[in-house]
This record gives sequence, C-alpha cells and structure tokens, in this order.
Amino acid sequence: MTDTRPTACLLVIGDEVLSGRTRDANIQYLGTRLNELGIPLREVRVIPDDRAVIVATVNEVRHRFTYVFTTGGIGPTHDDITSECIAEAFGVPWVVHPEAYAEMAADYARRNPPVEFNAARQRMATMPEGATLIRNAVSVAPGFRIGNVIVMAGVPKVMQAMFEAVAPTLEGGIPTVSRSVHAQGVLEGAIAEPLGAIQAESPGVALGSYPYYRAGGNGVAIVARGTDRAAVEAAIAKVAAMLRAAGAEPVFGEPA
Amino acid sequence: MTDTRPTACLLVIGDEVLSGRTRDANIQYLGTRLNELGIPLREVRVIPDDRAVIVATVNEVRHRFTYVFTTGGIGPTHDDITSECIAEAFGVPWVVHPEAYAEMAADYARRNPPVEFNAARQRMATMPEGATLIRNAVSVAPGFRIGNVIVMAGVPKVMQAMFEAVAPTLEGGIPTVSRSVHAQGVLEGAIAEPLGAIQAESPGVALGSYPYYRAGGNGVAIVARGTDRAAVEAAIAKVAAMLRAAGAEPVFGEPA
Repeated sequence: MTDTRPTACLLVIGDEVLSGRTRDANIQYLGTRLNELGIPLREVRVIPDDRAVIVATVNEVRHRFTYVFTTGGIGPTHDDITSECIAEAFGVPWVVHPEAYAEMAADYARRNPPVEFNAARQRMATMPEGATLIRNAVSVAPGFRIGNVIVMAGVPKVMQAMFEAVAPTLEGGIPTVSRSVHAQGVLEGAIAEPLGAIQAESPGVALGSYPYYRAGGNGVAIVARGTDRAAVEAAIAKVAAMLRAAGAEPVFGEPA
Repeated sequence: MTDTRPTACLLVIGDEVLSGRTRDANIQYLGTRLNELGIPLREVRVIPDDRAVIVATVNEVRHRFTYVFTTGGIGPTHDDITSECIAEAFGVPWVVHPEAYAEMAADYARRNPPVEFNAARQRMATMPEGATLIRNAVSVAPGFRIGNVIVMAGVPKVMQAMFEAVAPTLEGGIPTVSRSVHAQGVLEGAIAEPLGAIQAESPGVALGSYPYYRAGGNGVAIVARGTDRAAVEAAIAKVAAMLRAAGAEPVFGEPA
C-alpha cells in the first residue's frame, strides 16, 4: 500500500552533533509530532556547519519531500550560517527582514538594562528575501519559512516553540497511529516466524520488533504503526495472542 | 585548510528512530570515538526500514566517504532487512556465512536449555558474499564488513562492542582534539564579534558557540576543535581572555 501522505525531512545542522558533543533531542520530538500531523518524517540528515554541504543538501531534499525542517545555526555567532545558506540555496538575496528587525529592536530596548541591538544580533533579523517569520514565545529571534523549508533553532525548547507555532499552517494527512505490546523473557528469534506471518496478513500496518534490556528484565516490544486505527489494533491483538501462545505474558504498551 | 583525513558516514536504519519511538544514542558514541581515531563523522542519515531507500542510500554514500557505518536491522525478525539490502547494494549474493553459521549453531546448542537454531536465527548468519565477520563479546550474532561498509546492530551495547572490535582495523588519521570554556551570565550576542575575530585569526581551528540553559544558571560554552593541539589550546585561551574582558568568569571545560 503506497503512502500518499505529505512527507518530511529534517536537517540537523551542527558540528556539535557530529562530534558527539551534543546528543540531539529534536529528531525524537519532530518524529513524534509529525506522525500526529500525518506528515511522516521520512529522513533525517545530520550535516556540519559547512556552507557548501548545507546549500547542496537543502537543494537536494527540498525537491524530494513535502516539507524540510532545519534545526540549528540561526544564532548570532560566526558559526551560525544556516540562514545565509538557505538564501543561497534558493538563489535569493539575504536581506534584513523589516518586521523582524523592528520587533527585535523594540524587545532589546525594553529590557532592563537595555540590550544593545548590535551587528551580531541584527544578523538574526537577516533572512532570505521572501521569508515568512515564525514568531514564538520563547526566543525574540524568530525562525522563518521560505517555500517548503522551515528554519528553526537548535536549542530544543526554542525549536519546540517554533514548531508548534508553524504546525497549524502545515497541510497534514491522516495521522499515524501506533500501538505496542511487550513481553518479558521472550527472545526475538523464538517469535520471528509467527510475527512475520502476522505482518504478511496485515497490509497497511508496519510491525517493528525491538528487544529491550532493563534492570527489571529483558524482553521484546512489538510496535504496530499505520493510518488505519482498527487495522493497527487488530494486528497488535494478534501479536498479543501469539505471545501468549508462545508461553509469554503480553503487556500492552511500551516497557516502563 | 582542507581536511585530508579519512571520513565517516553513519546510516541509522530504523522506523523506530524516525517515528520518535526510540531516541538514538549511537550518533553520539560514534561521533566521539571516530574523532579520537581521526576519522571525522561527516554525515549521518536516519532512514526507514525500506529496501529501496536503504539500497540507494548505501550506494550513494559508500562512494563519497572513506567508511560507512550502519546501525540497526540485523536481527532475526521480518523488519531486519539491512543485511540483504547491503548485498543488493553491492550486487553480490546473500548467502550463509559458514563460520558465522557454525559459531552460532555451537553457541545456541551449548545453552541450557539449548536454543533452537531456527530459520529466523539462521538469517543472522546470512550475509553478503565476501563479508568479513565482526565478532564481539556481547552478541552471538556477528556484525560484518564488506568493502568500506561496516554493518552493526542498533542496540547501543551491542553496537559499541562491534565498533570496538572493528576499530583497530580502521585506517585512522590525526585525532580531532577539542577544548572548551564556558561562562555563566553571558549572552551569545554580546561576544559574537570578538569571538568571530578569534575565529578569523585561528586557521585550522573551528570555534563553536553553544548557549546553555541550566538550573544553575544560563551561559555560553565555546568549543574549539582541530587537529593541532597547540592551536586549539591557544584559541581557547584567547576565548577565555575575551570572556574575562567582557566581564564574565571563564571556566575551562563544559558546564556540568
């Protein structure tokens, strides 16, 4: 069954993720939220703070996915080059956005003590020509959207605020629903064959099998995903019955 | 300064990461370890359990990077399709590896009670023709290498054991060293200009600026990365002096 829903790609832009300095938290948030919106996340790329790589990657993926989200590289320092790279990718000038400039200038001026709206901070009001602002309650510097590319901050709290601000404007599809069941003491290899049989008779449902290793006991969690809630629930019920037939005690939901 | 060292790409293969069900932990581990080996991680892609996507992605990146690492999809269940996709990407048969088969059969037989070496488990001994085994102390099923592609499990503990088993066989380069300094109460926008000036006079060193938000106080961490330890240390010393001149108290290392 072909999935005809809109699709999403995420570009995580940042040397700090590739170097291991920072463990990304945005993939998980976006993957979850985009499934709720019916815009499944189909690919993530983590790329360095490198102009040529950013420009080429943006231009490749923006033609392949309905939406492209980027995180990182929109702050005031020299290593924040995402915004100007997006302008280059779209072949448009990188210019001061008058509303962003005015709003940021006002915000900095009203702080006590006032914060200087210096050249570095003015860069955060400089955007690809034609960009639409993504205002949010957490950061004075906005994200922006141009075409199907949505440019957000890398700090999770700011990214989440920007995503939730832009989410109502996205054209979504049927949400992905997921159900899970798990059982302790089960080895994946012991249930692989009957699980594969359930997958074969569950079109439109994707069954994933994930072993877990916890202090409270090892086991396997099975997740069913799809857009047809009844089909997803029927598949997970079959898995539960199969686990019980294999001598295990199925527990609905993910292991704690 | 062009970086002529070997390069690495990581393919994280798994619907569970894209859906948000699982937060990846392997990027951080590999990014850190590969820098120590002088094989910087230059790109990560997270892709679904989709045969066409896996085959096309492997064939694209294996020609662009010195090494390609994959995580995920080598277990016994129907959604574990990485191994056969690697065979297809290389255009070689997917066949039983005699040593892997013999070692797994012996391991399962000696367990108490014995574990059946069934068809699903035999799939884990089936590999692209010509693959070299990556034996490890954690899992009976080995990873493998074919050409410049290194295929590992997705479970972090198993992945780490496989990586450490293969690491001594990789041709590394000069390690990336990094040093950091941070200061509370500093706004990025206030130090962006002098930080950019230090970057400009520090060829071969990459300076990254990362704001942090902690219960103990907000601030900015600056990380210097490069292959010339003296240059990295000189750059971070300049940053510390700059922070002090800006009225902040620099503390070497990352914020706790």
